[in-house]
Amino acid sequence: MGYLKLGFLCLGLGLILSFSLLCDAGVTSSYARKNGLSSESSDIDDMPLDSDVFTAPPGYNAPQQVHITQGDYEGKGVIISWVTPEEPGSKTVVYWAENSSVKRRADGVVVTYKFYNYTSGYIHHCTIKGLEYDTKYYYELGVGDAKRQFWFVTPPKPGPDVPYTFGLIGDLGQTYDSNATLTHYELNPVKGQSLLFVGDLSYADRYPNHDNNRWDTWGRFVERSTAYQPWIWTAGNHEIDFVPDIGETVPFKPFTHRYFMPFESSGSTSPLWYSIKRASAHIIVMSSYSAYGTYTPQWKWLQGELPKVNRSETPWLIVLMHSPMYSSYVHHYMEGETMRVLYEPWFVQYKVDVVFAGHVHAYERSERVSNIAYNIVNGLCSPKNDNSAPVYITIGDGGNSEGLVTEMTQPQPSYSAYREASFGHGIFDIKNRTHAHFGWHRNQDGLAVEGDSLWFINRYWMSKEEASVSAV
Amino acid sequence: MGYLKLGFLCLGLGLILSFSLLCDAGVTSSYARKNGLSSESSDIDDMPLDSDVFTAPPGYNAPQQVHITQGDYEGKGVIISWVTPEEPGSKTVVYWAENSSVKRRADGVVVTYKFYNYTSGYIHHCTIKGLEYDTKYYYELGVGDAKRQFWFVTPPKPGPDVPYTFGLIGDLGQTYDSNATLTHYELNPVKGQSLLFVGDLSYADRYPNHDNNRWDTWGRFVERSTAYQPWIWTAGNHEIDFVPDIGETVPFKPFTHRYFMPFESSGSTSPLWYSIKRASAHIIVMSSYSAYGTYTPQWKWLQGELPKVNRSETPWLIVLMHSPMYSSYVHHYMEGETMRVLYEPWFVQYKVDVVFAGHVHAYERSERVSNIAYNIVNGLCSPKNDNSAPVYITIGDGGNSEGLVTEMTQPQPSYSAYREASFGHGIFDIKNRTHAHFGWHRNQDGLAVEGDSLWFINRYWMSKEEASVSAV
Repeated sequence: MGYLKLGFLCLGLGLILSFSLLCDAGVTSSYARKNGLSSESSDIDDMPLDSDVFTAPPGYNAPQQVHITQGDYEGKGVIISWVTPEEPGSKTVVYWAENSSVKRRADGVVVTYKFYNYTSGYIHHCTIKGLEYDTKYYYELGVGDAKRQFWFVTPPKPGPDVPYTFGLIGDLGQTYDSNATLTHYELNPVKGQSLLFVGDLSYADRYPNHDNNRWDTWGRFVERSTAYQPWIWTAGNHEIDFVPDIGETVPFKPFTHRYFMPFESSGSTSPLWYSIKRASAHIIVMSSYSAYGTYTPQWKWLQGELPKVNRSETPWLIVLMHSPMYSSYVHHYMEGETMRVLYEPWFVQYKVDVVFAGHVHAYERSERVSNIAYNIVNGLCSPKNDNSAPVYITIGDGGNSEGLVTEMTQPQPSYSAYREASFGHGIFDIKNRTHAHFGWHRNQDGLAVEGDSLWFINRYWMSKEEASVSAV
Repeated sequence: MGYLKLGFLCLGLGLILSFSLLCDAGVTSSYARKNGLSSESSDIDDMPLDSDVFTAPPGYNAPQQVHITQGDYEGKGVIISWVTPEEPGSKTVVYWAENSSVKRRADGVVVTYKFYNYTSGYIHHCTIKGLEYDTKYYYELGVGDAKRQFWFVTPPKPGPDVPYTFGLIGDLGQTYDSNATLTHYELNPVKGQSLLFVGDLSYADRYPNHDNNRWDTWGRFVERSTAYQPWIWTAGNHEIDFVPDIGETVPFKPFTHRYFMPFESSGSTSPLWYSIKRASAHIIVMSSYSAYGTYTPQWKWLQGELPKVNRSETPWLIVLMHSPMYSSYVHHYMEGETMRVLYEPWFVQYKVDVVFAGHVHAYERSERVSNIAYNIVNGLCSPKNDNSAPVYITIGDGGNSEGLVTEMTQPQPSYSAYREASFGHGIFDIKNRTHAHFGWHRNQDGLAVEGDSLWFINRYWMSKEEASVSAV
């Protein structure tokens, strides 16, 4: 509370000029960083191709790179995806509820793509709908000695007080650090039930001709999580794969062939932006690298989507995007401005609880600030405390081959509450309609240690309660 | 000069708060406006379908909606497009130089498209390259009694002191006002040799299901100009034609089928952004409604294009886009911010001479200002005079069915030099490497009257001359 009061005092003092000099309350962690950004390096520090995490499953044409994501708007559906390397093979998923002996079958589609001199395997996507809520399902892919079995748990029915735990990872890549991040997430005593991934998956585009074999290795690497819990995907800049020099001019080709999204069920016309309801959360995924200007399909979709969010059913309004709208690191500084000036007013108006982004290879959490008073001529362009504003969390510290960004703007601006250049992951743990706990876990710490944390008070229900109190 | 000095004085006084109250030097014309924005109206005030300007040419399957645009990077090429209504018919263009008896032939391609319940005619596009500079060519389309003849003049070879005259029209539509604008342009004693069109062509999207027959009427309406001089096309929001309710989810479908651009010759991968050299001008066309964020194809293309502009060959650097980055009208206010924060620094760095935009249905000319000092925390967010900055001209006053926007932000901000809500067109008349004259002509005036005008001093050569003077 002292924090908040100090913030308002700062605002009073600092109305006109940058006041961060006067009363900077943010924290820049003194934690020793592991390494600096290595994007200039010609060596890519990924795990070698013969690493055990990349091992293909045994058996002829065995399904690999298995990953699931939500398959409908409400959480009764799942999209199961996998790759068969030699031939299309079986398109069938056999699945059954843990407590049932009835096995069901569903057939998917198979897509392939070429990227310069690479030809993909057979990429299967099978959407299953109409599942029971809050139920463990087993599923089987493949045939004969290449048959593989996995399981997942459907979320509870959307409702305002349904507890649910989301993991947060961004900019993962496939280095030893990536592996440490994923392992740390898996072993976290607070178990993530679904993972919100804020973009930049494989970093295959750092290889000559964007060697798409590194998309395959990445798919095998993360399978140990993605086959068992839905990862909710956001497109990052490393998914663009736009290389006109080698004739590759269709953006997002590998990504959109390998990862299907349930975009149509939220009325979207593109897999790059969409929304889902899951337990007590309404999750909106935006695309930083698609058209988002006024009147564009993404803008129109979001304009229609935000008023439809029913906070009485899903109190927690979460937005995912790749490029952060608030970041105080030097690298990628202000890249998010072009989206911020357009969308920040909506985020405040609709009381978004939290915006998760990646892109910057570090961790940062903002104060609840907004910067929406600007009208070109009024000079009002400093972020100010705003109780209706989201918290902006940058969590692009998954551990990819470009390394960490350690250079920060100085002094720490007042909108920045905590920043640290260490690899890690996050946990957003919803307790009920009013409270959620967020923790950030750096890889070097013990499994239960939170390097940074915050209790979230739901923006919608907070104001409802305030309103009912003042009405008494 | 007094103007400029006053501007700097204003800056000194008004560093922190809006200073337009203190020393507003801009002009808001007192000219009586014709009508206000009618976008709420259910009646569309377009010329009726049986208007003479929409008459199809006689003869079976006669080529109609003839239009030409530049067909290569340097101006030795032309793309000739036309529509045949009944069947594909001849794909051939017969053409010859005025001073030659040798007739040549070129074959084009034919495309068609469906839009909901509309099926297009046969849309022909024929690219002819390797023409002589500065030469009048005749061309013939169609066969038998439906044969039609037109002509065009190729531009002079690119060179720094080649005079050349561009017309400027935006947001034209197909009302009686549109017809007045086009007529006024055609009869202007300063003859435009090529027209820079800043987006929003037919306004067919204002009809139920975006009735694409109104794309056809528009094509017939403007043929009297577009068949004889190249129109350089920019995509506007009325070209998006995104209507998911009726299954039309591919943006720009009618526009990109009907209007071809020479985008590949400038290394672009999309017809929606590209550049051409024409006489002494380098013209860059941007798309306000495509992806333009950092790392996107449009961003990468422009990042590569700007350093390639050779001001010793083409001194005049002109940018076209639909949504203005500086506008002080209430309607669409600040819609251009999302592009401004991203691209304005480049425009200043590369000394763009002028940015023409449409979208706002009125006329406005800016001072040479920039607003690129902002870094989130420094409070520096007011446009200030900048000799390296372009002039921003909004010329969305072609006369479409939505009418004029008459409501302006008050007081007139200091970045706005002149604004008036009247229909009209512009002429950008390049004299040599240092001087160009711009005039804005409102429809109600005599043909030679300039409602607003400005002598442009080339930003690149101005600084060269200043540099050589100071070196003496």
